[in-house]
Amino acid sequence: MLIGVYQSQPVFGEVNFNVEQVSNDLPEGTADLWVLPELFNSGYQFASKEEVADLAEEIPGGRTCRAMINLAARLRAVLVFGMAERANKVCYNSAAVVGPRGFIGFYRKVHLFAEEKKFFEPGDTGFQVFDAGQAKVGVMICFDWIFPESARILALLGADIICHPSNLVLPYCQKAMVTRSLENAIYTATANRLGSEARGGKKPLTFTGGSQIIGPSGQVLSRLNDREKGWAVAEINVEEARDKKITDYNDLLGDRKPEFYGRLCE
Amino acid sequence: MLIGVYQSQPVFGEVNFNVEQVSNDLPEGTADLWVLPELFNSGYQFASKEEVADLAEEIPGGRTCRAMINLAARLRAVLVFGMAERANKVCYNSAAVVGPRGFIGFYRKVHLFAEEKKFFEPGDTGFQVFDAGQAKVGVMICFDWIFPESARILALLGADIICHPSNLVLPYCQKAMVTRSLENAIYTATANRLGSEARGGKKPLTFTGGSQIIGPSGQVLSRLNDREKGWAVAEINVEEARDKKITDYNDLLGDRKPEFYGRLCE
Repeated sequence: MLIGVYQSQPVFGEVNFNVEQVSNDLPEGTADLWVLPELFNSGYQFASKEEVADLAEEIPGGRTCRAMINLAARLRAVLVFGMAERANKVCYNSAAVVGPRGFIGFYRKVHLFAEEKKFFEPGDTGFQVFDAGQAKVGVMICFDWIFPESARILALLGADIICHPSNLVLPYCQKAMVTRSLENAIYTATANRLGSEARGGKKPLTFTGGSQIIGPSGQVLSRLNDREKGWAVAEINVEEARDKKITDYNDLLGDRKPEFYGRLCE
Repeated sequence: MLIGVYQSQPVFGEVNFNVEQVSNDLPEGTADLWVLPELFNSGYQFASKEEVADLAEEIPGGRTCRAMINLAARLRAVLVFGMAERANKVCYNSAAVVGPRGFIGFYRKVHLFAEEKKFFEPGDTGFQVFDAGQAKVGVMICFDWIFPESARILALLGADIICHPSNLVLPYCQKAMVTRSLENAIYTATANRLGSEARGGKKPLTFTGGSQIIGPSGQVLSRLNDREKGWAVAEINVEEARDKKITDYNDLLGDRKPEFYGRLCE
């Protein structure tokens, strides 16, 4: 199976442009699964709650999801992408999973970063794993990475790959995702964006690129730089993520001792 | 506060030599807390359960603990060290914490690595944090590192420093401990050993050194190489480990969402 990460440079508020850019850039027949950045269609630095509501769309009924389902059909690939979701009267920082046959599922970001707390409701879907045909995919979004609980739960739910749409501004995540892969013996695909945003008189944000695909032993299978838009693909073997044995005596998930982990759930 | 890691090269079975070596090597007035390797007094590669029982001692009544309490008094420092513990008729891979005023506490390794499962009972103490005067110290042993639950629980219990006696043979841990510090905003002090052991016709084991002290932002404060016995010290500020805020809006422990973490405790 081939999986890819797409490193984009969206223009704030230009949804049509941002979606078309992806459609133009992603090559057919190159990957079975593509991961895109967080909020790939809108940009990141919202100035007000009203602006979020204006740019948010329904999942899967909105125009971005419809366009991405068409793109998935054309690419014959599963697409995982982050976008602002409008549901009833509130908005979530969400990610949708769509495939050639249509909508597969969605996730609402549990751990909101910085001012996202002003604009989005905390996610209420919990962590989930979706069937993407050749692989089971778990989804977490950007800042979820710093909470080891996120990736761990996705691994426990049977994910082979953690799809990780991101808009990273801190420099730590890419290295830490090596640990996330290693500790869970799982593939991780972090799709980050590029560029800077300075909106509403706020401090400019610069995104750090470095989109990457990491293997179950923590090996860097592919990593983009911090300057260029583009994509990277790696061939993966889901069986490697299903074998959690790391010595003749040790299984990474089977050796867990939940009887001593109660404090984590309080 | 000054904390140190001691990187030793024990000789298998030579308990007196191994304990004296530490006593000779650790300088007075240099650290308030010293972390030593796992099984520092016995060596690692046991050939049989009988050999473990012969080398194991009671905590705190055995000769190693008594010698270390004397050393703690002379150094005016807290000492955290790994040793095989005999309790009733079974043995544990344990770590003891002693200070100038005597015995403080102990921990029995929860996650046993490889053949350790043949020789030791899984630890039954659970994760615990001890009061070491200037700081609260949590203890985990070697392979516990790969389970993010271990360090997380110690952080939740209020540890400022994770003391991590180790006998590492795999090359991943030192980098992963940067993530453990970062995700918990905590100091970690990994004391590893050097040298090779090939006993009982088994595959030789070579230990990877690289003992290190990492700060709460994942910064490497001190790291030894993989060739030389010795020690390293770093000055730490426990207040930095008590402040879990990483943005104006985010607190690393306060932002956890245990309502979605139930799967971790099943």
